[in-house]
Amino acid sequence: MKIDKPNDGLLSVTTGPIQGSRKVYATREGRPDIRVPIREIVLTDPDEPPVRVYDPSGPYTDADMAIDLSKGLQLVREPWIAARGYGAVEARPVKPEDNGHVPADKLVAPCPAERVVRRAAPGQMVTQYEFARAGIITEEMIYVAHRENLCREAMLAGAEAKIADGESFGASIPPFITPDFVRQEVARGRAIIPANINHPELEPMAIGRNFLVKVNANIGNSAVVSTAADEVEKLVWAIRWGADTVMDLSTGRNIHNIRSWIIRNAPVPIGTVPIYQALEKVGGDPVKLDWEVFKDTLIEQAEQGVDYFTIHAGVRLPYVPLTAKRVTGIVSRGGSIMARWCLAHHKESFLYERFDEICDIMRAYDVSFSLGDGLRPGSIADANDAAQFAELETLGELTKVAWGKGCQVMIEGPGHVPMHKIKVNMDKQLRECGEAPFYTLGPLTTDIAPGYDHVTSGIGAAIIGWFGTAMLCYVTPKEHLGLPNRDDVKTGVITYKIAAHAADLAKGHPAAQMRDDALSRARFDFRWEDQFNLSLDPDTARAYHDETLPKDAHKVAHFCSMCGPKFCSMKITQDLRAEVAAMSPEAQEQLAGMRVKSQEFLESGGKLYVDQP
Amino acid sequence: MKIDKPNDGLLSVTTGPIQGSRKVYATREGRPDIRVPIREIVLTDPDEPPVRVYDPSGPYTDADMAIDLSKGLQLVREPWIAARGYGAVEARPVKPEDNGHVPADKLVAPCPAERVVRRAAPGQMVTQYEFARAGIITEEMIYVAHRENLCREAMLAGAEAKIADGESFGASIPPFITPDFVRQEVARGRAIIPANINHPELEPMAIGRNFLVKVNANIGNSAVVSTAADEVEKLVWAIRWGADTVMDLSTGRNIHNIRSWIIRNAPVPIGTVPIYQALEKVGGDPVKLDWEVFKDTLIEQAEQGVDYFTIHAGVRLPYVPLTAKRVTGIVSRGGSIMARWCLAHHKESFLYERFDEICDIMRAYDVSFSLGDGLRPGSIADANDAAQFAELETLGELTKVAWGKGCQVMIEGPGHVPMHKIKVNMDKQLRECGEAPFYTLGPLTTDIAPGYDHVTSGIGAAIIGWFGTAMLCYVTPKEHLGLPNRDDVKTGVITYKIAAHAADLAKGHPAAQMRDDALSRARFDFRWEDQFNLSLDPDTARAYHDETLPKDAHKVAHFCSMCGPKFCSMKITQDLRAEVAAMSPEAQEQLAGMRVKSQEFLESGGKLYVDQP
Repeated sequence: MKIDKPNDGLLSVTTGPIQGSRKVYATREGRPDIRVPIREIVLTDPDEPPVRVYDPSGPYTDADMAIDLSKGLQLVREPWIAARGYGAVEARPVKPEDNGHVPADKLVAPCPAERVVRRAAPGQMVTQYEFARAGIITEEMIYVAHRENLCREAMLAGAEAKIADGESFGASIPPFITPDFVRQEVARGRAIIPANINHPELEPMAIGRNFLVKVNANIGNSAVVSTAADEVEKLVWAIRWGADTVMDLSTGRNIHNIRSWIIRNAPVPIGTVPIYQALEKVGGDPVKLDWEVFKDTLIEQAEQGVDYFTIHAGVRLPYVPLTAKRVTGIVSRGGSIMARWCLAHHKESFLYERFDEICDIMRAYDVSFSLGDGLRPGSIADANDAAQFAELETLGELTKVAWGKGCQVMIEGPGHVPMHKIKVNMDKQLRECGEAPFYTLGPLTTDIAPGYDHVTSGIGAAIIGWFGTAMLCYVTPKEHLGLPNRDDVKTGVITYKIAAHAADLAKGHPAAQMRDDALSRARFDFRWEDQFNLSLDPDTARAYHDETLPKDAHKVAHFCSMCGPKFCSMKITQDLRAEVAAMSPEAQEQLAGMRVKSQEFLESGGKLYVDQP
Repeated sequence: MKIDKPNDGLLSVTTGPIQGSRKVYATREGRPDIRVPIREIVLTDPDEPPVRVYDPSGPYTDADMAIDLSKGLQLVREPWIAARGYGAVEARPVKPEDNGHVPADKLVAPCPAERVVRRAAPGQMVTQYEFARAGIITEEMIYVAHRENLCREAMLAGAEAKIADGESFGASIPPFITPDFVRQEVARGRAIIPANINHPELEPMAIGRNFLVKVNANIGNSAVVSTAADEVEKLVWAIRWGADTVMDLSTGRNIHNIRSWIIRNAPVPIGTVPIYQALEKVGGDPVKLDWEVFKDTLIEQAEQGVDYFTIHAGVRLPYVPLTAKRVTGIVSRGGSIMARWCLAHHKESFLYERFDEICDIMRAYDVSFSLGDGLRPGSIADANDAAQFAELETLGELTKVAWGKGCQVMIEGPGHVPMHKIKVNMDKQLRECGEAPFYTLGPLTTDIAPGYDHVTSGIGAAIIGWFGTAMLCYVTPKEHLGLPNRDDVKTGVITYKIAAHAADLAKGHPAAQMRDDALSRARFDFRWEDQFNLSLDPDTARAYHDETLPKDAHKVAHFCSMCGPKFCSMKITQDLRAEVAAMSPEAQEQLAGMRVKSQEFLESGGKLYVDQP
């Protein structure tokens, strides 16, 4: 049952399982502390095994879990982090500017859930990258391996399995993910596990081209609208439908305190763009930014538990003139802020010049880098231009610096890019950035459809995901027009889950097709309930069906309203199969005689799938 | 102003221009009878020329045109057809079974608009293919050339033009389309102009890989729901948003009379699947079908003016067993009907065996073939299998037969196909079918998103359109679940216009990017009204913007609710440009000194676009 959000303010969010699903946990042998959540879809046909799917929705979809936002989520990682022996540090005191000097009567109270604040000492191993390089398999790596593997175990056990036959463009997804495979991928910088040591509520996940393609959803109040309550609910709502990470892009007042509610209640990695808050602290004028206020903001957010920071250190002064003749100039907020600063001061970006120091701060908490694409194209006309690619080369240079400092790194990309210019983005990113995970917005494949940019970008996202992008940043129908509401967030997430899954299929992910096959069998058998429940959005699938055929009896009907009973091809095909089954042996033989042509096909390699033994 | 459909039954449909647009007609020099409709979007910036876009919406969006459905549309083609001297034939009398033996009190009256019924004599040239082969340029070819060219003329005249830089995979789109180029394309079978001589209301259009990618929308009542009124309005509604052709997939009663309303009021080519009506005539049992009832139906519909017929002649008896082990069997209605017939009779398909006769009938009216993909895959598991490709090879064989008979031909394809299996479909189709236009459903790139199959298929449609598919058959959000309503039709059409346009951009269509550029300039200049009006769906773009910023003042605001005024990157960039412009020459020079890196980029080929002189 879907339980809608009761309308009583901040402390209430959408809870309850997704229709037709239940939450189960898989525990590693000998490691009862590593409990990986799975969403299990139970089917009506007793011959069909339950379908297990990757589940980033956290405890909110667990019917047995009581949610109290003021206490925050269970501390899944606490024992692992505690055992690593980081000293508790005195938390940086909250300053009035952290919440935008909001007057007392407008102040949103911080989340009362208190957590110890940790920070690694210099030289003390702390990042997943450092552990991986040292050959140490962390609990997070074990968790991730188990999580990524769920479907594959089922496949290897199942009789319906197919050998995947994708084109992975050089990615090498193994048949089975081991903890040591995760370690190797992290060690060579090809995957990250964004996991701040101050975010013990996190259910760890990996971003890398040899794992499932992930989806990010953006939330955040803007100066114009939105409240704290809306943002926490948007987080819960976004992960309910499958967002793997969430970026809090809030600006304006109460930003620090709203963030405390978000992180304490986030089972997924939370990303931010610290320059936004830094800008608020200097009254909104980019020219007034400086290293001190930025550094202070990094520490503030790292102590709160943010898992990755977008750092626009690739927007260098010499690149600013390259944007002058663009049709849409600079469309990244962070990029435009830094370009303005560079030009006003006629100085190289302090993010670039202080990059070493930024690394040292982020390393101490294991905050991952998301190296920002401040010069991404905002229109088809500006795609793949000199400004964009100059920045990408700098991001490649910075990737190596960050790795040298022990940090985890991913790289932001695209924007507006027509289909034929997508691949060069991926290829160049892999080359320049040493295969560090690519994390792209869209790309939007045309500019002409505001109101439908989830679609223009879903096309590009599926393609670039196929080519190797590790995480796709969603775009909602409101892109370019306004702030997304609850429905927009859901539409954006589902569209991007489609893109990510289409990419997994095309890459030849060993287990991706299992869900397609289960749903298609349900469809062909007219198991309507199973078809709804296996879909990315059971509520919408059911509602659409019920618009024309609302009765329960129609849930077992061997047709739908699209073609009606007489013209249902699947009904006819079922009759046809029954007919063949009922034929005399002679008749079947005669039919077999007609199959010469068919046999030729099969023998000439027409059979694309090989059944598992 | 958008004028909504008044709720008074059959005789009223949606009329009035699309918001911000006006209908203009371009007349060929010396040929005042060839008036090509264009939609012109007038912009608020006096320095911006109006943007002219391809317009399939017909007279319904012409503010000066009175619409009377009972009289039908203007007879655009009448003088051209009349001059070719076909004899009027006595129309086949309407039989009770044509309307499914509907009782008199339930009979929908036919459209009262009467038209002379024509049929070419044996040996008399009639199809566009025959004229093209004979070196004759028809009025339809001139019309099409002018229609396809609109944007290119503007481009060649405009200062903002770019040299297109797409990857066309072997298509060869010329910088300028001449009537003789159209003739050549038709003559070699690479394009068709579906144009029944009994459809004088038609505004001719071309389908071929060297023309703009087209979109088809399906309408049609099913046995379960829908009325005649709904279907006519769906036609008008679908073409309003950009559908280039419409297929009437009606089944059930009143089918003949509803079709008369549709065709008499259709400015776009109408396609049908005659086997559906034939099946109704034999009471819904595929086994009772025979050549006589099918032939009679072909003549009935050809006389009414249907422009293309889907003929599932590739579903041969020997291929039926190839579908037995499929996950979803046969999912084409026509395909399953014919498979059932073949198996029940243990005979080769009468469509295949009588193909010559079918050609002779269709040629006499210039009804184009849409060779049906009765064995298209209905699931990812069944994609590109032996059944699908066996049928495609037969379609290639039939293409040559139809050409030999003087007929125009296109080929239906895909269904459910993951991204990495799309290209082989296109390549094989081009090879087997001699570059006859490909017309594909989707393809859907995953099975797991019922309720969002416009998106799963929009991804595949954009990709296969890029590879060379000439027309994309839309999929609505209700696919697999129910009959699409008005909103679903619009969502499906807009999604497919996005896919088609993304494909045109990626193919390097010489003028496709003009609209993107105009919209992006409007966006960067905060010309909100222009941004809305240039979009594929101005109503939705405006409504989404107004949700958060409804006031008129916000239509000139230099921000939107997404980022708010302080964080608007485009606002910051504009300030930045002003700053550069205001700098002293020395300061500009100093900045130029920082550009060494930038210059390297430009010199090393970083500049992707070349300005027009």
